[in-house]
Amino acid sequence: MCQKTQDIAVHRDSAPETGGNRTRPNPPSDAVINLDHGDPTVFETYWRKVGEKSTIKFKGDQSLSYFANAKNLCWFLEPKLEEEIGRLHNVIGNAKVKDHFIVVGNGSSQLIQAALYAVSPCDHPEPVCVVSAAPYYSSYQEVADLLQSRLYRWGGDAYSFEKDEPYIEMVTSPNNPTGVMREPVVNRPQGKIIHDLAYYWPHYTPITSQVNHDIMLFTVSKCTGHAGSRIGWALVRDKDVAKKMVKFMEVSTIGVSKESQLRAAKILGIISDSCQDDKSPDLDNFFEYSQHLMAQRWEKLRQVVKLNELFSLTKYPSEYCLFTKDFTQAHPAFAWMSSKSNMEDCEKVLRGHKILARSGSRFGSDPQYVRISMLGRDQEFNLFLERLSSIQEITSEN
Amino acid sequence: MCQKTQDIAVHRDSAPETGGNRTRPNPPSDAVINLDHGDPTVFETYWRKVGEKSTIKFKGDQSLSYFANAKNLCWFLEPKLEEEIGRLHNVIGNAKVKDHFIVVGNGSSQLIQAALYAVSPCDHPEPVCVVSAAPYYSSYQEVADLLQSRLYRWGGDAYSFEKDEPYIEMVTSPNNPTGVMREPVVNRPQGKIIHDLAYYWPHYTPITSQVNHDIMLFTVSKCTGHAGSRIGWALVRDKDVAKKMVKFMEVSTIGVSKESQLRAAKILGIISDSCQDDKSPDLDNFFEYSQHLMAQRWEKLRQVVKLNELFSLTKYPSEYCLFTKDFTQAHPAFAWMSSKSNMEDCEKVLRGHKILARSGSRFGSDPQYVRISMLGRDQEFNLFLERLSSIQEITSEN
Repeated sequence: MCQKTQDIAVHRDSAPETGGNRTRPNPPSDAVINLDHGDPTVFETYWRKVGEKSTIKFKGDQSLSYFANAKNLCWFLEPKLEEEIGRLHNVIGNAKVKDHFIVVGNGSSQLIQAALYAVSPCDHPEPVCVVSAAPYYSSYQEVADLLQSRLYRWGGDAYSFEKDEPYIEMVTSPNNPTGVMREPVVNRPQGKIIHDLAYYWPHYTPITSQVNHDIMLFTVSKCTGHAGSRIGWALVRDKDVAKKMVKFMEVSTIGVSKESQLRAAKILGIISDSCQDDKSPDLDNFFEYSQHLMAQRWEKLRQVVKLNELFSLTKYPSEYCLFTKDFTQAHPAFAWMSSKSNMEDCEKVLRGHKILARSGSRFGSDPQYVRISMLGRDQEFNLFLERLSSIQEITSEN
Repeated sequence: MCQKTQDIAVHRDSAPETGGNRTRPNPPSDAVINLDHGDPTVFETYWRKVGEKSTIKFKGDQSLSYFANAKNLCWFLEPKLEEEIGRLHNVIGNAKVKDHFIVVGNGSSQLIQAALYAVSPCDHPEPVCVVSAAPYYSSYQEVADLLQSRLYRWGGDAYSFEKDEPYIEMVTSPNNPTGVMREPVVNRPQGKIIHDLAYYWPHYTPITSQVNHDIMLFTVSKCTGHAGSRIGWALVRDKDVAKKMVKFMEVSTIGVSKESQLRAAKILGIISDSCQDDKSPDLDNFFEYSQHLMAQRWEKLRQVVKLNELFSLTKYPSEYCLFTKDFTQAHPAFAWMSSKSNMEDCEKVLRGHKILARSGSRFGSDPQYVRISMLGRDQEFNLFLERLSSIQEITSEN
């Protein structure tokens, strides 16, 4: 009990309450705006427009069993979800499903652990290092070190990894927090690579190739916005690795909620339908709609940042997207913002204006940087812009 | 990749397929009958009778957020589920909820890990031993040793634990596999105790007291039969322990499926309703109905065992149940059966007759014992009885 209990992604005093309430009042003008975590409620408006077509019903006698498909390597994976995952990747063209096993998880967080468990060498005298190029996703360290495993441990920034021994590299592409596309950086034969592709969808970034890696992780949360469902999936080339991941899921949680899987199948099916040429005219193309939303937000944010001249934002190149068949820039799920003065604690400055965001120091970077979620509801996002634009100068009192 | 990947609870070649199929054909007469795991499909008939009242709908724009109730210590716990858990324990009188925090998990398996994480001393030079009195639940060892943690490790049979140092004791009551009520056995001041009460419900065992321990684990799977939902809960007295369990859940899976939680709330609400004096006349009391089902099965099994004279079963005393207000015996979820000859591998004998069950050796006991699920569908259970009664003698050829 002597370890400090710190919240990974939660500031309880400010996080919104959810539940059945569908007409949401504007937050009070002095409310704390929580943009620390990437809670993807921006997509609620799309699903409200879709309406009844996206409703799913569960009867009381349905899905009692632990099993979804006992003949499958991943015996708890609902066949309908497996089908819709394959279909969506084919429609978008972002990842190759063929010659990969699908393993479903309680969000991609659990699949990261399953993958670490599956690829860790068990004949190595020391825990293998898990590395990722800084700035890296802040949860990797927590996930790798939580149980002080003898199999693996957090090894820090991949750029500084010099050891001549086995390692595991997490490659996040597009990167969380920066939004840029990534490749492995260590590139040594003893390495195993886990590709975290949570944000490799056309609303966030141009789809420049159909990726085809050994282990690729995706999540419903950042694809459709249904973070509350806790559904992620892994595409895994090697059968033994897939089997070990399934074994991890068995011991850890005996599989994954059937309700969430079946609902995710329905939701993924709708977004695939929405991309078809012969789609129903009252169904907006999900990725066009969402890309438009993200582009609007980025434009507004860039305007505010330009006007007050205190901060700067990452710039993204225009690239040809194989899905939209057009040149487009990235509109990432997070803004990676820095203070121009190079010396300030940017997270603290924003906190002084009742904006919660995640400090660059949490990502193996400098406190001059801060990660800001672009995925909140309109009311919160607009209040954030209002407050950001009101910041006149960055002083140590902030 | 050199660790042997063994299935904890799964025999894929024989496990039933589930999904939307609600009129189920009888298994072929030569089918392998899988009673290895406690898949609680016996309760499907109750929920089919309840019908439309137990249906739940999810709209597409519902439950996108990670948060369920940001003001709660367990910020991902749906308020409705919290309410229904409290209500059910009060209706049944099996456990004291007052003065406890509720932590929801992806099944009780995940909560076991969260509790081990939360109560492990972090200033101890060696991993703390996790013990349980043999015969103990076969998954404890796998859960404790999965990631080779420096915090805790499996320490085996609690009766053999002699060390003068901190330890964690898992107390399973009623016990899995034996069905008998249990108390801690080590009883030393350095110990932390986790009470696994998955089966402390009136359809399995007389409720002899309202228990009131520091950490109590329950699961929807074994209470209502909805194992596919992967919902468990912990009642935790100490706030710091509850906080650390929540922290584990955050890092491990960022919470628990909202769909499963809301459906579990609905299902628990119905079984509480069904126990009320003023309940709707077309709603059978769930626990009476299920106790009757279990009692019938046990009677049939005892008859077969008595007739063929090769095996013996655990006997349970008649005790006064505070819920049914009557004397009753236990009708456990598993039969703990042994061969009378004392020398045979009982699991192997049954396997020779196409019945899969779990060997006593998996529970820290002898292979002369075997654990048999009593929770399958009628067709499987009847075929099991038919085959059991056809066994004439136990020979080494079996």
